[in-house]
Amino acid sequence: SAQGDGSGSAFVSVLSDFETKTVLRDSAREKNIFIHGKIVDQDAIVILEKTPIRQDNLPEMFQDSRLKLEMKNDIYSTYQLQPPAHLNEIKTTVICPATEKHVKKYLRQETFLVEETGDDYRSITLPYISSQSFSVQWVYNILEKKAEADRIIFEDPDPNTGFVLLPDFKWDQKQLDDLYLIAIVHRRDIKSLRDLRSEHLPLLRNIRKKGEETIQKQYSVRPCKLRVYLHYQPSYYHLHVHFTSLDYEAPGCGVERAHLLSDVIQNLEADSEYYHGRSLSFPLRADDSLLLRFREAGRL
Amino acid sequence: SAQGDGSGSAFVSVLSDFETKTVLRDSAREKNIFIHGKIVDQDAIVILEKTPIRQDNLPEMFQDSRLKLEMKNDIYSTYQLQPPAHLNEIKTTVICPATEKHVKKYLRQETFLVEETGDDYRSITLPYISSQSFSVQWVYNILEKKAEADRIIFEDPDPNTGFVLLPDFKWDQKQLDDLYLIAIVHRRDIKSLRDLRSEHLPLLRNIRKKGEETIQKQYSVRPCKLRVYLHYQPSYYHLHVHFTSLDYEAPGCGVERAHLLSDVIQNLEADSEYYHGRSLSFPLRADDSLLLRFREAGRL
Repeated sequence: SAQGDGSGSAFVSVLSDFETKTVLRDSAREKNIFIHGKIVDQDAIVILEKTPIRQDNLPEMFQDSRLKLEMKNDIYSTYQLQPPAHLNEIKTTVICPATEKHVKKYLRQETFLVEETGDDYRSITLPYISSQSFSVQWVYNILEKKAEADRIIFEDPDPNTGFVLLPDFKWDQKQLDDLYLIAIVHRRDIKSLRDLRSEHLPLLRNIRKKGEETIQKQYSVRPCKLRVYLHYQPSYYHLHVHFTSLDYEAPGCGVERAHLLSDVIQNLEADSEYYHGRSLSFPLRADDSLLLRFREAGRL
Repeated sequence: SAQGDGSGSAFVSVLSDFETKTVLRDSAREKNIFIHGKIVDQDAIVILEKTPIRQDNLPEMFQDSRLKLEMKNDIYSTYQLQPPAHLNEIKTTVICPATEKHVKKYLRQETFLVEETGDDYRSITLPYISSQSFSVQWVYNILEKKAEADRIIFEDPDPNTGFVLLPDFKWDQKQLDDLYLIAIVHRRDIKSLRDLRSEHLPLLRNIRKKGEETIQKQYSVRPCKLRVYLHYQPSYYHLHVHFTSLDYEAPGCGVERAHLLSDVIQNLEADSEYYHGRSLSFPLRADDSLLLRFREAGRL
Protein backbone atom coordinates (compact mmCIF):
# COMPACT_ATOMS: atom_id res chain seq x y z
CA SER A 1 0.00 0.00 0.00
CA ALA A 2 1.30 3.47 -0.85
CA GLN A 3 0.65 6.68 1.05
CA GLY A 4 1.35 10.29 0.19
CA ASP A 5 3.49 12.74 2.12
CA GLY A 6 3.90 16.48 1.96
CA SER A 7 6.78 16.41 -0.51
CA GLY A 8 4.98 14.25 -3.02
CA SER A 9 7.35 11.27 -2.72
CA ALA A 10 5.73 7.86 -2.56
CA PHE A 11 6.17 5.95 0.68
CA VAL A 12 5.32 2.28 0.84
CA SER A 13 4.67 0.05 3.79
CA VAL A 14 5.80 -3.36 2.52
CA LEU A 15 7.76 -3.95 5.72
CA SER A 16 4.89 -3.36 8.13
CA ASP A 17 3.81 -6.92 7.26
CA PHE A 18 7.30 -8.33 7.80
CA GLU A 19 7.59 -10.93 10.53
CA THR A 20 11.10 -11.50 11.83
CA LYS A 21 12.08 -15.15 12.23
CA THR A 22 15.77 -14.83 12.93
CA VAL A 23 18.73 -12.47 12.66
CA LEU A 24 21.18 -14.13 10.27
CA ARG A 25 24.03 -11.74 10.87
CA ASP A 26 24.69 -8.23 12.07
CA SER A 27 27.68 -5.99 12.45
CA ALA A 28 27.94 -3.34 15.13
CA ARG A 29 30.96 -1.97 13.33
CA GLU A 30 29.31 -1.68 9.94
CA LYS A 31 25.87 -0.87 11.34
CA ASN A 32 24.00 -3.46 9.35
CA ILE A 33 21.70 -6.38 10.07
CA PHE A 34 20.52 -9.34 7.92
CA ILE A 35 17.10 -10.68 8.89
CA HIS A 36 15.23 -13.77 7.76
CA GLY A 37 11.44 -13.63 8.02
CA LYS A 38 8.17 -13.68 6.17
CA ILE A 39 6.21 -11.14 4.13
CA VAL A 40 2.65 -12.43 4.09
CA ASP A 41 3.27 -16.08 3.10
CA GLN A 42 6.67 -15.75 1.47
CA ASP A 43 10.15 -16.25 2.85
CA ALA A 44 12.06 -13.00 2.73
CA ILE A 45 15.42 -11.57 3.68
CA VAL A 46 15.65 -7.96 4.74
CA ILE A 47 19.02 -6.23 4.94
CA LEU A 48 19.25 -2.92 6.78
CA GLU A 49 22.39 -0.81 6.69
CA LYS A 50 22.84 2.70 8.00
CA THR A 51 24.20 5.15 5.46
CA PRO A 52 27.60 6.88 5.61
CA ILE A 53 27.64 10.39 7.08
CA ARG A 54 28.07 12.88 4.27
CA GLN A 55 30.17 15.99 4.65
CA ASP A 56 27.75 18.12 2.61
CA ASN A 57 24.95 17.36 5.08
CA LEU A 58 26.88 18.52 8.14
CA PRO A 59 25.70 22.17 8.28
CA GLU A 60 22.04 21.14 8.16
CA MET A 61 22.65 18.31 10.60
CA PHE A 62 24.31 20.60 13.14
CA GLN A 63 21.60 23.23 12.72
CA ASP A 64 18.50 21.07 12.95
CA SER A 65 19.42 18.17 15.24
CA ARG A 66 18.34 17.51 18.78
CA LEU A 67 21.16 16.62 21.20
CA LYS A 68 20.83 14.83 24.51
CA LEU A 69 23.83 14.94 26.90
CA GLU A 70 25.02 11.50 28.04
CA MET A 71 28.33 12.05 29.81
CA LYS A 72 30.75 14.85 30.60
CA ASN A 73 34.34 14.43 31.88
CA ASP A 74 36.85 17.27 31.62
CA ILE A 75 37.09 18.28 27.94
CA TYR A 76 35.17 15.21 26.75
CA SER A 77 31.42 14.93 26.42
CA THR A 78 29.11 12.54 24.63
CA TYR A 79 25.59 13.04 23.31
CA GLN A 80 22.82 11.28 21.47
CA LEU A 81 21.96 13.24 18.38
CA GLN A 82 18.64 13.01 16.55
CA PRO A 83 19.13 14.43 13.05
CA PRO A 84 16.41 15.37 10.57
CA ALA A 85 14.94 12.10 9.23
CA HIS A 86 15.86 12.73 5.59
CA LEU A 87 19.56 13.01 6.55
CA ASN A 88 19.56 9.73 8.40
CA GLU A 89 18.01 7.09 6.20
CA ILE A 90 18.68 3.38 6.37
CA LYS A 91 19.49 1.53 3.17
CA THR A 92 17.08 -1.38 2.95
CA THR A 93 17.32 -4.38 0.66
CA VAL A 94 14.50 -6.90 0.39
CA ILE A 95 14.87 -10.32 -1.21
CA CYS A 96 11.44 -11.91 -1.64
CA PRO A 97 10.78 -14.74 -2.16
CA ALA A 98 14.10 -15.88 -0.68
CA THR A 99 15.44 -19.42 -1.03
CA GLU A 100 17.35 -21.61 1.43
CA LYS A 101 20.51 -20.63 -0.44
CA HIS A 102 19.97 -16.95 0.27
CA VAL A 103 19.47 -17.73 3.93
CA LYS A 104 22.69 -19.76 4.16
CA LYS A 105 24.62 -17.11 2.28
CA TYR A 106 23.85 -14.48 4.92
CA LEU A 107 23.88 -16.67 8.02
CA ARG A 108 26.82 -15.88 10.22
CA GLN A 109 28.18 -18.55 12.48
CA GLU A 110 29.09 -17.54 15.97
CA THR A 111 32.76 -18.03 16.90
CA PHE A 112 34.29 -19.20 20.15
CA LEU A 113 37.80 -18.64 21.43
CA VAL A 114 39.61 -21.90 22.16
CA GLU A 115 42.75 -21.92 24.29
CA GLU A 116 44.69 -24.95 23.08
CA THR A 117 47.50 -26.21 25.32
CA GLY A 118 50.38 -28.18 23.83
CA ASP A 119 48.73 -31.32 25.20
CA ASP A 120 45.36 -30.35 23.68
CA TYR A 121 47.12 -30.06 20.35
CA ARG A 122 48.51 -33.56 20.57
CA SER A 123 45.39 -35.22 22.04
CA ILE A 124 42.62 -33.31 20.23
CA THR A 125 43.77 -31.20 17.28
CA LEU A 126 46.46 -33.40 15.73
CA PRO A 127 44.28 -36.57 15.67
CA TYR A 128 41.50 -34.44 14.19
CA ILE A 129 43.75 -33.06 11.42
CA SER A 130 45.02 -36.58 10.62
CA SER A 131 41.55 -38.11 10.61
CA GLN A 132 40.23 -35.50 8.22
CA SER A 133 43.11 -36.02 5.76
CA PHE A 134 42.50 -32.50 4.44
CA SER A 135 43.71 -32.47 0.89
CA VAL A 136 46.50 -30.06 0.09
CA GLN A 137 46.80 -31.41 -3.47
CA TRP A 138 46.06 -27.93 -4.80
CA VAL A 139 49.13 -26.66 -2.88
CA TYR A 140 51.30 -29.42 -4.37
CA ASN A 141 49.95 -28.50 -7.81
CA ILE A 142 51.26 -24.97 -7.30
CA LEU A 143 54.64 -26.14 -5.99
CA GLU A 144 54.98 -28.54 -8.96
CA LYS A 145 53.81 -25.88 -11.50
CA LYS A 146 50.83 -28.01 -12.45
CA ALA A 147 48.53 -25.10 -11.64
CA GLU A 148 48.77 -21.32 -11.26
CA ALA A 149 52.36 -21.39 -12.54
CA ASP A 150 51.82 -18.05 -14.28
CA ARG A 151 50.76 -16.43 -11.00
CA ILE A 152 54.03 -17.15 -9.18
CA ILE A 153 55.96 -13.92 -8.79
CA PHE A 154 59.01 -15.37 -7.04
CA GLU A 155 60.50 -18.77 -6.29
CA ASP A 156 63.39 -19.97 -4.20
CA PRO A 157 63.69 -23.64 -5.22
CA ASP A 158 65.80 -24.78 -2.24
CA PRO A 159 64.07 -27.89 -0.83
CA ASN A 160 64.76 -26.86 2.79
CA THR A 161 64.52 -23.09 2.88
CA GLY A 162 62.73 -22.43 -0.42
CA PHE A 163 59.21 -21.22 -1.17
CA VAL A 164 56.97 -19.75 -3.85
CA LEU A 165 55.36 -16.33 -3.53
CA LEU A 166 52.07 -15.58 -5.29
CA PRO A 167 49.08 -13.26 -4.95
CA ASP A 168 46.30 -14.47 -2.68
CA PHE A 169 42.98 -15.17 -4.42
CA LYS A 170 41.36 -12.34 -2.48
CA TRP A 171 43.63 -9.78 -4.13
CA ASP A 172 42.71 -8.74 -7.68
CA GLN A 173 46.13 -7.01 -8.06
CA LYS A 174 44.41 -3.90 -9.44
CA GLN A 175 45.49 -1.63 -6.57
CA LEU A 176 48.10 -1.81 -3.85
CA ASP A 177 45.70 -0.78 -1.05
CA ASP A 178 44.67 -4.36 -0.42
CA LEU A 179 47.93 -6.05 -1.43
CA TYR A 180 47.84 -9.69 -0.29
CA LEU A 181 50.45 -12.31 -1.14
CA ILE A 182 51.15 -15.80 0.17
CA ALA A 183 54.49 -17.56 0.56
CA ILE A 184 54.12 -21.36 0.40
CA VAL A 185 57.13 -23.42 1.52
CA HIS A 186 58.52 -26.27 -0.56
CA ARG A 187 58.93 -28.53 2.51
CA ARG A 188 55.92 -30.72 3.03
CA ASP A 189 56.54 -31.76 6.63
CA ILE A 190 55.43 -28.60 8.48
CA LYS A 191 51.71 -28.51 9.11
CA SER A 192 51.49 -25.28 11.05
CA LEU A 193 53.01 -22.93 13.63
CA ARG A 194 52.82 -25.83 16.13
CA ASP A 195 55.48 -27.79 14.20
CA LEU A 196 58.01 -24.97 14.09
CA ARG A 197 61.33 -25.46 15.92
CA SER A 198 64.61 -23.52 15.91
CA GLU A 199 65.82 -25.74 13.02
CA HIS A 200 63.28 -23.92 10.85
CA LEU A 201 64.73 -20.48 11.55
CA PRO A 202 66.74 -20.38 8.28
CA LEU A 203 63.50 -21.11 6.38
CA LEU A 204 61.54 -18.42 8.23
CA ARG A 205 64.27 -15.79 7.90
CA ASN A 206 64.58 -16.62 4.19
CA ILE A 207 60.84 -16.13 3.63
CA ARG A 208 60.89 -12.83 5.45
CA LYS A 209 63.95 -11.47 3.66
CA LYS A 210 63.22 -12.61 0.10
CA GLY A 211 59.48 -12.04 0.41
CA GLU A 212 60.02 -8.44 1.49
CA GLU A 213 62.71 -7.87 -1.16
CA THR A 214 60.49 -9.24 -3.92
CA ILE A 215 57.51 -7.14 -2.88
CA GLN A 216 59.65 -4.03 -2.73
CA LYS A 217 61.09 -4.75 -6.20
CA GLN A 218 57.84 -5.84 -7.83
CA TYR A 219 55.35 -3.43 -6.24
CA SER A 220 57.56 -0.70 -4.71
CA VAL A 221 56.03 -1.44 -1.31
CA ARG A 222 58.57 -1.14 1.50
CA PRO A 223 58.87 -3.71 4.31
CA CYS A 224 57.62 -1.12 6.85
CA LYS A 225 54.32 -1.02 4.92
CA LEU A 226 53.76 -4.77 5.31
CA ARG A 227 52.12 -7.01 7.88
CA VAL A 228 53.80 -10.45 7.64
CA TYR A 229 52.17 -13.26 9.62
CA LEU A 230 51.01 -16.84 10.01
CA HIS A 231 47.54 -18.03 10.92
CA TYR A 232 46.79 -20.45 13.73
CA GLN A 233 44.67 -22.43 13.05
CA PRO A 234 45.60 -22.12 9.38
CA SER A 235 42.99 -22.78 6.72
CA TYR A 236 45.20 -25.58 5.26
CA TYR A 237 47.90 -27.60 6.97
CA HIS A 238 50.92 -26.86 4.81
CA LEU A 239 53.11 -24.04 6.12
CA HIS A 240 52.44 -20.68 4.48
CA VAL A 241 53.00 -17.03 5.38
CA HIS A 242 50.72 -14.05 4.66
CA PHE A 243 52.01 -10.70 3.38
CA THR A 244 49.39 -7.93 3.51
CA SER A 245 49.47 -4.16 3.21
CA LEU A 246 49.68 -2.57 6.66
CA ASP A 247 46.97 -0.05 5.70
CA TYR A 248 44.59 -2.87 4.74
CA GLU A 249 42.60 -4.53 7.50
CA ALA A 250 42.77 -7.95 5.90
CA PRO A 251 40.32 -10.57 7.16
CA GLY A 252 42.13 -12.83 9.64
CA CYS A 253 44.73 -10.28 10.73
CA GLY A 254 43.23 -9.99 14.21
CA VAL A 255 45.37 -10.78 17.26
CA GLU A 256 43.23 -13.86 17.98
CA ARG A 257 44.35 -15.63 14.81
CA ALA A 258 47.49 -13.98 13.41
CA HIS A 259 51.11 -14.36 14.55
CA LEU A 260 53.69 -11.88 13.25
CA LEU A 261 56.55 -13.68 11.54
CA SER A 262 59.00 -11.39 13.36
CA ASP A 263 57.57 -12.55 16.71
CA VAL A 264 57.64 -16.20 15.65
CA ILE A 265 61.31 -15.89 14.71
CA GLN A 266 62.20 -14.23 18.01
CA ASN A 267 60.24 -16.75 20.06
CA LEU A 268 62.01 -19.68 18.37
CA GLU A 269 65.39 -17.98 18.79
CA ALA A 270 64.74 -17.79 22.53
CA ASP A 271 63.14 -21.23 22.89
CA SER A 272 63.06 -23.92 20.23
CA GLU A 273 60.07 -25.54 21.98
CA TYR A 274 58.03 -22.30 22.24
CA TYR A 275 55.25 -23.43 19.91
CA HIS A 276 55.40 -27.01 21.14
CA GLY A 277 54.40 -26.26 24.71
CA ARG A 278 52.64 -22.91 24.69
CA SER A 279 48.87 -22.44 24.91
CA LEU A 280 47.63 -20.88 21.70
CA SER A 281 44.25 -19.10 21.44
CA PHE A 282 42.20 -19.10 18.25
CA PRO A 283 38.56 -18.65 17.21
CA LEU A 284 36.49 -21.54 15.88
CA ARG A 285 33.10 -21.27 14.20
CA ALA A 286 30.14 -22.97 15.84
CA ASP A 287 29.87 -25.43 12.94
CA ASP A 288 33.59 -26.38 12.94
CA SER A 289 34.05 -30.06 13.76
CA LEU A 290 37.23 -29.23 15.67
CA LEU A 291 35.10 -27.19 18.07
CA LEU A 292 32.97 -30.27 18.68
CA ARG A 293 36.12 -32.23 19.56
CA PHE A 294 37.13 -29.60 22.11
CA ARG A 295 33.60 -29.68 23.53
CA GLU A 296 33.63 -33.48 23.78
CA ALA A 297 36.97 -33.29 25.57
CA GLY A 298 35.44 -30.88 28.09
CA ARG A 299 37.83 -28.13 27.03
CA LEU A 300 35.18 -25.50 26.26
CA SER B 1 21.16 26.37 26.26
CA ALA B 2 18.60 23.69 27.17
CA GLN B 3 15.12 23.31 25.80
CA GLY B 4 12.24 21.13 26.84
CA ASP B 5 10.54 18.44 24.80
CA GLY B 6 7.38 16.46 25.24
CA SER B 7 9.01 13.56 27.06
CA GLY B 8 10.77 15.75 29.61
CA SER B 9 14.30 14.90 28.48
CA ALA B 10 16.68 17.80 28.20
CA PHE B 11 17.91 18.64 24.72
CA VAL B 12 20.86 20.95 24.25
CA SER B 13 21.99 22.88 21.24
CA VAL B 14 25.75 23.10 21.74
CA LEU B 15 26.38 22.01 18.14
CA SER B 16 24.26 24.66 16.46
CA ASP B 17 27.21 26.99 17.05
CA PHE B 18 29.73 24.51 15.63
CA GLU B 19 31.65 25.72 12.60
CA THR B 20 33.28 22.97 10.53
CA LYS B 21 36.87 23.67 9.50
CA THR B 22 37.92 20.31 8.10
CA VAL B 23 36.98 16.64 8.03
CA LEU B 24 39.87 14.79 9.66
CA ARG B 25 38.72 11.32 8.74
CA ASP B 26 35.60 9.41 7.80
CA SER B 27 34.66 5.84 7.13
CA ALA B 28 31.88 4.78 4.81
CA ARG B 29 32.25 1.27 6.19
CA GLU B 30 31.90 2.31 9.83
CA LYS B 31 29.54 5.23 9.23
CA ASN B 32 31.52 7.73 11.22
CA ILE B 33 33.13 11.12 10.66
CA PHE B 34 35.70 13.09 12.63
CA ILE B 35 35.42 16.86 12.26
CA HIS B 36 37.68 19.68 13.39
CA GLY B 37 36.02 23.03 13.92
CA LYS B 38 35.17 25.75 16.39
CA ILE B 39 32.53 26.17 19.09
CA VAL B 40 32.32 29.90 19.69
CA ASP B 41 36.04 30.73 20.10
CA GLN B 42 37.36 27.34 21.04
CA ASP B 43 38.88 24.61 18.92
CA ALA B 44 36.72 21.52 19.05
CA ILE B 45 36.56 18.06 17.60
CA VAL B 46 33.18 16.48 16.93
CA ILE B 47 32.92 12.77 16.24
CA LEU B 48 29.68 11.43 14.79
CA GLU B 49 29.03 7.72 14.49
CA LYS B 50 25.80 6.02 13.58
CA THR B 51 24.63 3.46 16.10
CA PRO B 52 24.33 -0.30 15.49
CA ILE B 53 20.87 -1.59 14.51
CA ARG B 54 19.34 -3.35 17.49
CA GLN B 55 17.29 -6.49 17.13
CA ASP B 56 14.86 -5.48 19.87
CA ASN B 57 13.97 -2.33 17.96
CA LEU B 58 13.06 -4.16 14.76
CA PRO B 59 9.30 -4.58 15.35
CA GLU B 60 8.84 -0.89 16.10
CA MET B 61 11.13 0.04 13.24
CA PHE B 62 9.20 -2.06 10.73
CA GLN B 63 5.88 -0.78 12.03
CA ASP B 64 6.59 2.94 12.19
CA SER B 65 9.11 3.61 9.43
CA ARG B 66 8.58 5.31 6.13
CA LEU B 67 9.95 3.46 3.12
CA LYS B 68 10.77 4.90 -0.26
CA LEU B 69 11.28 2.47 -3.16
CA GLU B 70 14.60 2.94 -4.97
CA MET B 71 14.94 -0.08 -7.24
CA LYS B 72 13.12 -3.26 -8.06
CA ASN B 73 14.57 -6.15 -10.11
CA ASP B 74 13.05 -9.62 -9.96
CA ILE B 75 13.16 -10.81 -6.33
CA TYR B 76 15.44 -7.94 -5.26
CA SER B 77 14.30 -4.47 -4.24
CA THR B 78 15.94 -1.62 -2.39
CA TYR B 79 14.44 1.18 -0.34
CA GLN B 80 15.34 4.19 1.73
CA LEU B 81 13.88 3.76 5.18
CA GLN B 82 13.18 6.61 7.60
CA PRO B 83 12.80 5.13 11.09
CA PRO B 84 11.39 6.89 14.14
CA ALA B 85 14.04 9.39 15.32
CA HIS B 86 14.57 7.82 18.74
CA LEU B 87 15.54 4.51 17.06
CA ASN B 88 18.12 6.12 14.85
CA GLU B 89 20.32 8.31 16.96
CA ILE B 90 23.87 9.28 16.15
CA LYS B 91 26.48 8.87 18.85
CA THR B 92 28.22 12.20 19.21
CA THR B 93 31.46 12.91 21.01
CA VAL B 94 32.68 16.45 21.58
CA ILE B 95 36.21 17.34 22.64
CA CYS B 96 36.38 21.00 23.58
CA PRO B 97 38.73 22.72 23.89
CA ALA B 98 40.74 20.42 21.63
CA THR B 99 44.51 20.69 21.29
CA GLU B 100 46.75 20.20 18.28
CA LYS B 101 47.41 16.69 19.62
CA HIS B 102 43.74 15.76 19.49
CA VAL B 103 43.52 17.02 15.93
CA LYS B 104 46.54 14.95 14.94
CA LYS B 105 45.18 11.90 16.72
CA TYR B 106 42.10 11.81 14.52
CA LEU B 107 43.62 13.00 11.25
CA ARG B 108 43.88 10.08 8.84
CA GLN B 109 47.49 9.32 8.12
CA GLU B 110 49.53 6.64 6.47
CA THR B 111 51.09 4.22 8.93
CA PHE B 112 54.51 2.57 9.07
CA LEU B 113 55.52 -0.51 10.96
CA VAL B 114 58.32 0.12 13.44
CA GLU B 115 60.29 -2.74 14.95
CA GLU B 116 61.42 -1.45 18.33
CA THR B 117 64.22 -3.36 20.06
CA GLY B 118 64.55 -3.21 23.84
CA ASP B 119 67.42 -0.77 23.34
CA ASP B 120 65.32 1.36 20.97
CA TYR B 121 62.70 1.57 23.71
CA ARG B 122 65.18 2.88 26.23
CA SER B 123 67.09 5.22 23.89
CA ILE B 124 64.23 6.49 21.69
CA THR B 125 60.72 5.72 22.98
CA LEU B 126 61.12 6.18 26.73
CA PRO B 127 62.85 9.59 26.45
CA TYR B 128 60.11 10.60 24.02
CA ILE B 129 57.32 9.56 26.39
CA SER B 130 58.98 11.39 29.28
CA SER B 131 59.59 14.56 27.27
CA GLN B 132 55.96 14.74 26.14
CA SER B 133 54.57 14.41 29.68
CA PHE B 134 51.27 13.11 28.28
CA SER B 135 48.55 13.93 30.78
CA VAL B 136 46.69 10.99 32.26
CA GLN B 137 44.74 13.25 34.62
CA TRP B 138 41.50 11.93 33.17
CA VAL B 139 42.59 8.40 34.16
CA TYR B 140 43.32 9.56 37.71
CA ASN B 141 39.87 11.25 37.77
CA ILE B 142 38.31 7.88 37.09
CA LEU B 143 40.45 6.04 39.64
CA GLU B 144 39.64 8.69 42.28
CA LYS B 145 35.92 8.76 41.36
CA LYS B 146 36.13 12.41 40.39
CA ALA B 147 34.63 11.54 37.02
CA GLU B 148 32.66 8.74 35.43
CA ALA B 149 32.15 7.09 38.85
CA ASP B 150 28.69 5.95 37.78
CA ARG B 151 30.14 4.20 34.75
CA ILE B 152 32.38 1.86 36.76
CA ILE B 153 30.89 -1.62 36.68
CA PHE B 154 33.49 -3.31 38.88
CA GLU B 155 36.31 -2.32 41.17
CA ASP B 156 39.00 -4.24 42.99
CA PRO B 157 40.49 -1.55 45.26
CA ASP B 158 43.74 -3.41 46.04
CA PRO B 159 46.58 -0.93 45.41
CA ASN B 160 48.84 -3.61 43.87
CA THR B 161 46.54 -5.97 42.00
CA GLY B 162 43.38 -3.84 41.83
CA PHE B 163 41.69 -2.14 38.90
CA VAL B 164 38.46 -0.55 37.75
CA LEU B 165 36.43 -1.95 34.87
CA LEU B 166 34.25 0.37 32.81
CA PRO B 167 32.77 0.59 29.33
CA ASP B 168 35.03 2.12 26.71
CA PHE B 169 33.86 5.45 25.25
CA LYS B 170 33.34 3.74 21.91
CA TRP B 171 30.66 1.41 23.32
CA ASP B 172 27.18 2.81 23.90
CA GLN B 173 26.19 -0.28 25.95
CA LYS B 174 22.94 -0.71 24.03
CA GLN B 175 23.91 -4.03 22.43
CA LEU B 176 26.43 -6.72 23.24
CA ASP B 177 27.68 -7.09 19.64
CA ASP B 178 30.27 -4.39 20.08
CA LEU B 179 30.92 -4.91 23.78
CA TYR B 180 34.05 -2.98 24.73
CA LEU B 181 35.29 -2.54 28.28
CA ILE B 182 38.54 -1.27 29.70
CA ALA B 183 40.29 -2.37 32.88
CA ILE B 184 42.45 0.43 34.30
CA VAL B 185 44.92 -0.58 37.01
CA HIS B 186 45.20 1.33 40.28
CA ARG B 187 49.01 1.21 40.20
CA ARG B 188 50.45 4.28 38.56
CA ASP B 189 53.96 2.98 37.89
CA ILE B 190 53.35 0.78 34.84
CA LYS B 191 53.41 2.75 31.62
CA SER B 192 52.89 -0.10 29.16
CA LEU B 193 53.60 -3.69 28.16
CA ARG B 194 57.31 -2.79 28.16
CA ASP B 195 57.29 -2.30 31.94
CA LEU B 196 55.72 -5.67 32.72
CA ARG B 197 57.78 -8.21 34.67
CA SER B 198 56.89 -11.50 36.38
CA GLU B 199 56.17 -9.53 39.59
CA HIS B 200 53.09 -8.19 37.79
CA LEU B 201 51.65 -11.63 37.10
CA PRO B 202 49.26 -11.50 40.10
CA LEU B 203 47.91 -8.19 38.76
CA LEU B 204 47.47 -9.53 35.23
CA ARG B 205 45.87 -12.80 36.36
CA ASN B 206 43.54 -10.84 38.64
CA ILE B 207 42.42 -8.58 35.77
CA ARG B 208 41.79 -11.55 33.53
CA LYS B 209 39.89 -13.57 36.17
CA LYS B 210 37.76 -10.82 37.69
CA GLY B 211 37.26 -9.01 34.39
CA GLU B 212 35.92 -12.17 32.76
CA GLU B 213 33.81 -13.05 35.83
CA THR B 214 32.26 -9.59 35.96
CA ILE B 215 31.45 -9.55 32.26
CA GLN B 216 29.88 -12.99 32.50
CA LYS B 217 27.80 -11.89 35.51
CA GLN B 218 26.86 -8.47 34.22
CA TYR B 219 26.32 -9.17 30.53
CA SER B 220 26.04 -12.99 30.34
CA VAL B 221 28.97 -13.03 27.93
CA ARG B 222 31.23 -16.02 28.46
CA PRO B 223 35.06 -15.78 28.49
CA CYS B 224 35.27 -17.79 25.23
CA LYS B 225 33.35 -14.94 23.55
CA LEU B 226 35.93 -12.33 24.58
CA ARG B 227 39.16 -10.96 23.12
CA VAL B 228 41.28 -9.67 26.01
CA TYR B 229 44.40 -7.71 25.07
CA LEU B 230 46.80 -4.84 25.57
CA HIS B 231 47.92 -2.31 22.98
CA TYR B 232 51.53 -1.53 22.22
CA GLN B 233 52.01 1.36 21.74
CA PRO B 234 49.07 2.22 23.98
CA SER B 235 47.16 5.45 23.43
CA TYR B 236 47.95 6.52 27.01
CA TYR B 237 50.81 5.46 29.24
CA HIS B 238 48.95 4.05 32.23
CA LEU B 239 48.46 0.28 32.09
CA HIS B 240 45.04 -0.79 30.85
CA VAL B 241 43.54 -3.91 29.30
CA HIS B 242 40.90 -4.11 26.54
CA PHE B 243 37.95 -6.53 26.69
CA THR B 244 36.06 -6.75 23.40
CA SER B 245 33.49 -9.11 21.98
CA LEU B 246 35.20 -11.79 19.86
CA ASP B 247 32.58 -11.29 17.13
CA TYR B 248 33.37 -7.57 16.97
CA GLU B 249 36.32 -6.46 14.85
CA ALA B 250 37.25 -3.69 17.24
CA PRO B 251 39.60 -1.01 15.92
CA GLY B 252 43.13 -1.76 17.14
CA CYS B 253 42.66 -5.52 17.53
CA GLY B 254 45.04 -6.30 14.65
CA VAL B 255 48.10 -8.46 15.27
CA GLU B 256 50.38 -5.46 14.62
CA ARG B 257 49.13 -3.62 17.70
CA ALA B 258 47.32 -6.00 20.06
CA HIS B 259 48.83 -8.51 22.50
CA LEU B 260 46.52 -11.13 24.00
CA LEU B 261 46.59 -11.00 27.78
CA SER B 262 46.83 -14.80 27.86
CA ASP B 263 50.01 -14.63 25.75
CA VAL B 264 51.46 -11.84 27.87
CA ILE B 265 50.90 -13.91 31.03
CA GLN B 266 52.53 -17.00 29.50
CA ASN B 267 55.48 -15.04 28.15
CA LEU B 268 56.15 -13.49 31.57
CA GLU B 269 55.76 -16.88 33.27
CA ALA B 270 58.50 -18.24 31.00
CA ASP B 271 60.73 -15.19 31.10
CA SER B 272 60.34 -12.19 33.42
CA GLU B 273 62.41 -10.07 31.02
CA TYR B 274 60.42 -11.02 27.89
CA TYR B 275 59.02 -7.54 27.30
CA HIS B 276 62.22 -5.85 28.44
CA GLY B 277 64.43 -7.31 25.74
CA ARG B 278 62.19 -8.39 22.90
CA SER B 279 61.69 -6.46 19.67
CA LEU B 280 58.10 -5.29 19.45
CA SER B 281 56.47 -4.25 16.17
CA PHE B 282 53.79 -1.59 16.02
CA PRO B 283 52.36 0.84 13.48
CA LEU B 284 53.03 4.55 13.76
CA ARG B 285 51.25 7.25 11.81
CA ALA B 286 53.23 9.44 9.44
CA ASP B 287 52.71 12.49 11.67
CA ASP B 288 53.58 10.78 14.96
CA SER B 289 56.56 12.54 16.54
CA LEU B 290 57.76 9.16 17.77
CA LEU B 291 58.13 8.09 14.13
CA LEU B 292 60.30 11.14 13.54
CA ARG B 293 62.50 10.07 16.46
CA PHE B 294 62.92 6.61 14.93
CA ARG B 295 63.74 8.21 11.58
CA GLU B 296 66.30 10.54 13.15
CA ALA B 297 67.90 7.54 14.85
CA GLY B 298 68.19 5.83 11.46
CA ARG B 299 65.86 3.05 12.61
CA LEU B 300 63.37 3.30 9.73
